[in-house]
Amino acid sequence: MVFILKENVSKEKIDKFISGWEQKGFSTILSVGTEHTAVCLIGNTASVDLDHIVQTNDIVSYGKRITEQYKAVNRTVHEDNTIIKVGGISIGEGFFTVISGPCSVESQEQVTEIAKSVKQSGARILRGGAFKPRTSPYAFQGRQAEGIEMLSYAKKETRMPIVSEIMNQTQIDLFENVDIIQIGARNMQNFDLLKTVGSLKKPILLKRGLANTIEELLMSAEYIVSGGNSQVILCERGIRTFETMTRNTLDLSAVVLLKQKSHLPVIADPSHASGIRSLVSPLAKAILAVGADGIMIETHSNPAEALCDGAQSLDLDQFKSLMADLKIRAKIENKII
Amino acid sequence: MVFILKENVSKEKIDKFISGWEQKGFSTILSVGTEHTAVCLIGNTASVDLDHIVQTNDIVSYGKRITEQYKAVNRTVHEDNTIIKVGGISIGEGFFTVISGPCSVESQEQVTEIAKSVKQSGARILRGGAFKPRTSPYAFQGRQAEGIEMLSYAKKETRMPIVSEIMNQTQIDLFENVDIIQIGARNMQNFDLLKTVGSLKKPILLKRGLANTIEELLMSAEYIVSGGNSQVILCERGIRTFETMTRNTLDLSAVVLLKQKSHLPVIADPSHASGIRSLVSPLAKAILAVGADGIMIETHSNPAEALCDGAQSLDLDQFKSLMADLKIRAKIENKII
Amino acid sequence: MVFILKENVSKEKIDKFISGWEQKGFSTILSVGTEHTAVCLIGNTASVDLDHIVQTNDIVSYGKRITEQYKAVNRTVHEDNTIIKVGGISIGEGFFTVISGPCSVESQEQVTEIAKSVKQSGARILRGGAFKPRTSPYAFQGRQAEGIEMLSYAKKETRMPIVSEIMNQTQIDLFENVDIIQIGARNMQNFDLLKTVGSLKKPILLKRGLANTIEELLMSAEYIVSGGNSQVILCERGIRTFETMTRNTLDLSAVVLLKQKSHLPVIADPSHASGIRSLVSPLAKAILAVGADGIMIETHSNPAEALCDGAQSLDLDQFKSLMADLKIRAKIENKII
Amino acid sequence: MVFILKENVSKEKIDKFISGWEQKGFSTILSVGTEHTAVCLIGNTASVDLDHIVQTNDIVSYGKRITEQYKAVNRTVHEDNTIIKVGGISIGEGFFTVISGPCSVESQEQVTEIAKSVKQSGARILRGGAFKPRTSPYAFQGRQAEGIEMLSYAKKETRMPIVSEIMNQTQIDLFENVDIIQIGARNMQNFDLLKTVGSLKKPILLKRGLANTIEELLMSAEYIVSGGNSQVILCERGIRTFETMTRNTLDLSAVVLLKQKSHLPVIADPSHASGIRSLVSPLAKAILAVGADGIMIETHSNPAEALCDGAQSLDLDQFKSLMADLKIRAKIENKII
Repeated sequence: MVFILKENVSKEKIDKFISGWEQKGFSTILSVGTEHTAVCLIGNTASVDLDHIVQTNDIVSYGKRITEQYKAVNRTVHEDNTIIKVGGISIGEGFFTVISGPCSVESQEQVTEIAKSVKQSGARILRGGAFKPRTSPYAFQGRQAEGIEMLSYAKKETRMPIVSEIMNQTQIDLFENVDIIQIGARNMQNFDLLKTVGSLKKPILLKRGLANTIEELLMSAEYIVSGGNSQVILCERGIRTFETMTRNTLDLSAVVLLKQKSHLPVIADPSHASGIRSLVSPLAKAILAVGADGIMIETHSNPAEALCDGAQSLDLDQFKSLMADLKIRAKIENKII
Repeated sequence: MVFILKENVSKEKIDKFISGWEQKGFSTILSVGTEHTAVCLIGNTASVDLDHIVQTNDIVSYGKRITEQYKAVNRTVHEDNTIIKVGGISIGEGFFTVISGPCSVESQEQVTEIAKSVKQSGARILRGGAFKPRTSPYAFQGRQAEGIEMLSYAKKETRMPIVSEIMNQTQIDLFENVDIIQIGARNMQNFDLLKTVGSLKKPILLKRGLANTIEELLMSAEYIVSGGNSQVILCERGIRTFETMTRNTLDLSAVVLLKQKSHLPVIADPSHASGIRSLVSPLAKAILAVGADGIMIETHSNPAEALCDGAQSLDLDQFKSLMADLKIRAKIENKII
Repeated sequence: MVFILKENVSKEKIDKFISGWEQKGFSTILSVGTEHTAVCLIGNTASVDLDHIVQTNDIVSYGKRITEQYKAVNRTVHEDNTIIKVGGISIGEGFFTVISGPCSVESQEQVTEIAKSVKQSGARILRGGAFKPRTSPYAFQGRQAEGIEMLSYAKKETRMPIVSEIMNQTQIDLFENVDIIQIGARNMQNFDLLKTVGSLKKPILLKRGLANTIEELLMSAEYIVSGGNSQVILCERGIRTFETMTRNTLDLSAVVLLKQKSHLPVIADPSHASGIRSLVSPLAKAILAVGADGIMIETHSNPAEALCDGAQSLDLDQFKSLMADLKIRAKIENKII
Repeated sequence: MVFILKENVSKEKIDKFISGWEQKGFSTILSVGTEHTAVCLIGNTASVDLDHIVQTNDIVSYGKRITEQYKAVNRTVHEDNTIIKVGGISIGEGFFTVISGPCSVESQEQVTEIAKSVKQSGARILRGGAFKPRTSPYAFQGRQAEGIEMLSYAKKETRMPIVSEIMNQTQIDLFENVDIIQIGARNMQNFDLLKTVGSLKKPILLKRGLANTIEELLMSAEYIVSGGNSQVILCERGIRTFETMTRNTLDLSAVVLLKQKSHLPVIADPSHASGIRSLVSPLAKAILAVGADGIMIETHSNPAEALCDGAQSLDLDQFKSLMADLKIRAKIENKII
């Protein structure tokens, strides 16, 4: 971290500023120029609130962080790609792992039928929402605990690992059979929940918040990994912008940057990003081409009757057809689908 | 809710569409024109997922909701302004209630000193963060339960009601002495937490999320009010936009619209909205002028040493001076400060 | 266009409303239900200001446009894809046309060297900025008219068609030798300029504005096509969002939607969208995979010395290597590169 | 400007880097620390493209601009507030100048009637659109040159200075009688137009673009002022965000920051910012309270029949009533209305 001091600051003030840092355990370098004086801070600056110092300290003109605040998820401290293994399935470099299933678990028949079909088409992991975050209190809130049971049964039937979204930390016990716990976009900065799943031994699928930056997503992953759980899958799922023709704007640059900056696997979700069925397949191909490690796609045996988000779900034939296409494309990427 | 059907739809399909709605308990009106056919749906459409129907039903060209999805917080069903009373203080039409205190409770001395000072300057409610949501796991996370105790002691000393932010529903018991529970911006769509506070008998201060629309804020309030707790204070605190010179963009139109559409009191928070101390006082005057029912301002006895967000806190003299100004202005608004 | 009237509106007011429309040449359909009355308007409603009517007419509760305002660029009125031919090169369905060259024309040697190299690598059209829109008046503003001449000379040398950005309509004569005139993002809603190029007989490359919706882009294209020039190429180049790690956010959903809604060719520009060299190649692959008809990529013989936007330019070897990769991928898309 | 170099950079490379700058006329300061080496650049760095250097120079880790790129409009180089005088009216510190009139000049009767009325109510400057930028080519495009004549006649009748929007530089001669030339939001970065009006001797009203930052607005003003015309009035008129309930989001923090950073007068436009009539008066009061130097409000003698933007126009009685209120409030601000 480097601070540039204001002009004409007295030597006393500079000395006080420097000794303040040294008392906190940092080393400093003082560089005095003809017009500007700079103070470089050496040590673990991750917990230093840079903006605060600049704005409250009357001798500092500005400051700049040299190293990222995220450490545990940073590629610079962990060069090799993290590959997460769950139930015989791998997620990470070299693979393009497809997660599919209904937005919402509705009945045992529904989820089992979908699970069997998507598995046959090439999906490796089954998704299904049991607890649904809904904007309106009057909208369908999911099958709750019963939904988790239905999903678990479909897991037994198909031997696919399952992923489902948790809403809060009191539900942890209900997720014992769930192989991957999903933290939804609205919970990306629910820091207590992040701490809780940071103490688990199972993979966490962390979705980017609607209005969260790439850096904030990495900081939220840092909560989990620094808590002891290094099995985090990052998921880009669209951000909120001024454009209203799509539900959100899928940010594929984020996929590339996340992989550059972090060693964690990165997937994307074209269903929630667009909210429009006819966009899902073209975006899925783009997600593969841009270098993502996987994808999450909503499917439904009868989208017109889905209790939730049917408008963005592929039907089972559409999914099968997309998978056939993705398999051809995965060869160009040298990835196992 | 009205649906416009596509051209050349068969009578059988229309009849099936209509009978489907009637089986669900709605009345319908069919209007057949030379080019378009419309179906109006009458009944409680709050739980109908409009987008879903339009996108999954192959005879529907588009649809439009006529009535808002929020009912309990809607001014049309409750014309009179809700006035919330807490510890002898009123929040709502006719008042401009000032809430002030430190971003974060740091020590007993700190919070008591600030409380006494802001009370003398004219603040009516004391704020103080005990549990702090921080982007980085390495940043100061607040004094936690101990912070709530310090705040409670300051309440006793000054007889000011207190407001503090809750992070999750497992903390409810710790907030027994807290007069107003704050739901922070990041938790605005933590629906389980909204349901939990909806069952309480104490006022809830609900902050708008960084990327949430005015309508979504009202829907989140609907979770609380429909749960049985009608004491909700809405708070505009800035939204995330492309502008980087301020932390967020304060949306004062939202204050006006929220008051037009809902009977709930509406306040604003210029400290978090701007993140810059020199903007707080000008924005505070604008917040009063635009018609808000109150304001929440961060203050600190020594902003340069604050453990959190000092850059946006007024010092106690600045706050005193601002309050003197606001008192003069409140007379023009016919409001009691 | 359909209007739903407010409740309890008198028959006189409704009759006056209807006769007003009929005097303007529209047909109307009146549908009276038990709770709502609807008026459907039939005729060319493209010039009707819907919001205005709803907000100023005291009997109208809301209104909804059934048909899009854009007609000439709408796929519904022109089902076949428009394919634009320029100097033996085709842009449109079936092709993936690569446009490349320097951000800014700097010297004859520079542009000729780059032109020859990118042609050999597989680019079909040469780009080069002569007039540069720069945020700062102190930044390099381009070689101006001289730059156009250098570009024209490079065209002769390589027999590649050229594209360059026009800044205002007084420059039209200078662009006689330019094969495709580019309207930049900042000029997307410079309506007088759109009208001017709408009267030309040469292709126009219309870039999406930083903060313009997909619909607004189509409306700007409508200015050109309705003016008589149907040779318009649409270009997605990133929109402005809250994310700061990239210069803009590339919106690939827009590419798919533009092709669904319009018959015009659609390309994308990963260089300006990201502003970061290492993102250009991954995004280029995604642009091809998502279904775009082409791409525009900035290249430079010596990016470190570029006078403008060198940070986002590929060097000539990087471009060659990307092209080799894209050629393999184009086969999967059944597209000629 | 300060550059922090990467670790382990050879002395040769550093020397070459420094001598490169010195050849361009800058002084440098080299500061070598144990972990980082910094190079400070002294001189006029306004034309240096910082991002470019950081991303293209392989020894530079990052850089930071110490001084703003805008010079001529910067308060640090011109401490006193600029007060613009036009036709006996002052705009700037100490005044709250009200500009009012129709969105669009429709007829001589219309504009004269409105002009007389708003003058009597307290407006000082008459606005009226003659050339209208419209998203759709089929929408009313304004009365054009004839509109300017009507406006000029109303000026004679009422002796109010007039302001109208120019669309491109070929129209300059038509604006001879126009006292203040408005550059609209869509033209804020039409740099050729900025250069043209920079050579005039009359005040320019420069509106912030829909998606332009505060800094970009200042840079556009810099184009005009550095061109020789220091009479620039900045206007905040709402930015484009994800919120759809209002047309744009009025950014009042921008008003405060613009006045802090620049010596130019700053006004705001609540009509275009909100697009909703019932928001105009509350926002007008907030604009005065936040410290703006004036306001621009659309009025119409018959909003329901307005050819453009009637939904956001106040009628003449509403305007009169608002002005009466603003006059009382201006006293608190010590401003002449």
